[in-house]
Amino acid sequence: MREVAVIGIGQTKIDEHWDKSLRDLAGDAALSALMDSGLEKVAALYVGNMMSGSANRQQHLGAYIADWIGLRGVEAIRLEAACSSGAASFRTAVMAVASGEVDSALVVGVEKMTDSPLQEVTAALATAADADWEAGQGLSFVALNALIMKRYMHEYGWEKEHFAPFAVNAHTNAIHNPFARFHEPTTIESYLKAPMINDPINLMDASPVGDGAAAAVLVPVESFRNPAHHKIVKVAASAAATDTIAIHHRKDPLFLRAAYNSGKKAYGQAGLKPSDINLFELHDAFSIMAALSLEANGFAERGQGPRLALDNEILPTGRIPIATRGGLKARGHPVGATGMYQIVEVVQQLRGEAFGTQVENARFGMSQNIGGSGSNIITHIFQLI
Amino acid sequence: MREVAVIGIGQTKIDEHWDKSLRDLAGDAALSALMDSGLEKVAALYVGNMMSGSANRQQHLGAYIADWIGLRGVEAIRLEAACSSGAASFRTAVMAVASGEVDSALVVGVEKMTDSPLQEVTAALATAADADWEAGQGLSFVALNALIMKRYMHEYGWEKEHFAPFAVNAHTNAIHNPFARFHEPTTIESYLKAPMINDPINLMDASPVGDGAAAAVLVPVESFRNPAHHKIVKVAASAAATDTIAIHHRKDPLFLRAAYNSGKKAYGQAGLKPSDINLFELHDAFSIMAALSLEANGFAERGQGPRLALDNEILPTGRIPIATRGGLKARGHPVGATGMYQIVEVVQQLRGEAFGTQVENARFGMSQNIGGSGSNIITHIFQLI
Repeated sequence: MREVAVIGIGQTKIDEHWDKSLRDLAGDAALSALMDSGLEKVAALYVGNMMSGSANRQQHLGAYIADWIGLRGVEAIRLEAACSSGAASFRTAVMAVASGEVDSALVVGVEKMTDSPLQEVTAALATAADADWEAGQGLSFVALNALIMKRYMHEYGWEKEHFAPFAVNAHTNAIHNPFARFHEPTTIESYLKAPMINDPINLMDASPVGDGAAAAVLVPVESFRNPAHHKIVKVAASAAATDTIAIHHRKDPLFLRAAYNSGKKAYGQAGLKPSDINLFELHDAFSIMAALSLEANGFAERGQGPRLALDNEILPTGRIPIATRGGLKARGHPVGATGMYQIVEVVQQLRGEAFGTQVENARFGMSQNIGGSGSNIITHIFQLI
Repeated sequence: MREVAVIGIGQTKIDEHWDKSLRDLAGDAALSALMDSGLEKVAALYVGNMMSGSANRQQHLGAYIADWIGLRGVEAIRLEAACSSGAASFRTAVMAVASGEVDSALVVGVEKMTDSPLQEVTAALATAADADWEAGQGLSFVALNALIMKRYMHEYGWEKEHFAPFAVNAHTNAIHNPFARFHEPTTIESYLKAPMINDPINLMDASPVGDGAAAAVLVPVESFRNPAHHKIVKVAASAAATDTIAIHHRKDPLFLRAAYNSGKKAYGQAGLKPSDINLFELHDAFSIMAALSLEANGFAERGQGPRLALDNEILPTGRIPIATRGGLKARGHPVGATGMYQIVEVVQQLRGEAFGTQVENARFGMSQNIGGSGSNIITHIFQLI
């Protein structure tokens, strides 16, 4: 199996892009990544997207985007794993390049959500849950996470205010990221005053939807022969695992088993332990998911995720920086694109290009993308070489 | 890169399955394939599906189906490439196993279309075309194919009746396939009397929608050590190519360039030429697509696809048998599952299990799955070893 490197990255700002279509957004990110890589063509395209079938009445994004960006004719497919579609497309590309079947690949995560009425977006997001046993009972995605958060607070004795540092860190970091949706700082006071969406989740616990695309170019490490290029980032680990799709089927709904399993595999592949990781772009779709992710991946004890945040260990200067470019909370969460934003941001950090929130001496960066209520979790570790 | 073998296959009948949900169907095919393979577990699941987001209000089929069939925890994603989603999922699994990342994989193509009102199915099918420049102009998928067929008849001088043998062959073969949607023979007379849908496409030129699932189990050839097992079928070639998503962007809309390109790659990988292929499960969603597929893959000269059919060369006893188990026309076309039905049928033929329509001495079989109006085409060649 060949080792795989990321040699190009690109992204668009996350926003309500009224002036750009789905293909415009995908094209902007893809062409930026290609330009950054120095390649003019690649052999295959992998598109991560969750909801273009309903939100844009357009599926078949492989052929659609290949055609648009000057890659007409290349192999091209779309991957879907709900909100983990971005990392799923990246992992598929990693395997294609590693296998020897494909010598260079472009991965694009794209989502254009704001053209649809919000109730349609909510319905589309609920297709990540179990249609019969969750969505069919009227549970939206926020409601599912609210149940988890409520139980967690009960179980471990945390109060609402203890989750504030997740939002504060994300919004503070996003100020320095030109591609982030929000550039407004927030405070504990404004966190506590934020309107309640679904008790105990308030507006500052939840990540915003948005339109955006992020992309990367992959080649085998062995074939990369461009000394003029900036630092090369190797894919040190790529792993995925699932859990029950419905939360009520889990013995322990407060443990992200798929995060633990895919994280464990990834640590094993890279020969690393949690303390070796210099930054962690985790899936903070809701504050509770940030806490649970820190715990499942070995950065905090069970029930102690908020402790890490309260101790400032999640800041860019802390023990395990998270959401360094704003995270899902403040950079934004265009669902099928998010996994690729996380990967692009880890690569930026390892290259030393994370202006304003650069993690010093970052050598190993981890990204983890969650689909559904923790039912599909994909972990990557990147290494500067 | 490791060689890959198919060691298990399974399928459901294609029908209006009012008593079975999406997961029931996928589960039936998947568990049949697992049982056939002799394996109890696999390391990864790849699901091919086009429209469950709209037709069943359920996406995230990787985690959803893994959970249902006793594979809770394994890596699992969904692939979408419109009507070529089935073969796209198979090719992704081939690369995963070939790369060494995954030691055994289950592939399931599934679609449950008949729960939705027909106008919604038509709208969902149109998401395979270009939303802005084709579907947005009111062109349904049948309309797009009707334009191609009309031009083809004009260009090469064929009459309506010359396309009848495609339907007659498909329906005759389907009688012997218990999994086929239709078991009624048809004749040239009934073909000519069939109601017109979209001139020149009549009911007997078009494949029916339906509910169904088909599955296969893949392992590396090198690791397969079960002498009690029935014949092993190797994946001799796997290749994919795209074309413009909109037909009007093609210089020659009567040539399936992506079929030619992926077919050429596949012949190269397998070291074969068209005359070596013993049967060809092609994508006869419409009669015109059968004709164009025969031409693009080197079985007929340009414009001469119908000739092959009129000369009976497409029958199980002919030079290049097609639709040997009924094809899309009579076995049925549950869009995202179709590519997997084609592959399962080729494996049946190579194993000598194609009761009633067995192609004698079948050693090499080819399947080709088309997404959109020829915009995404995936070709596999299988070999009995």
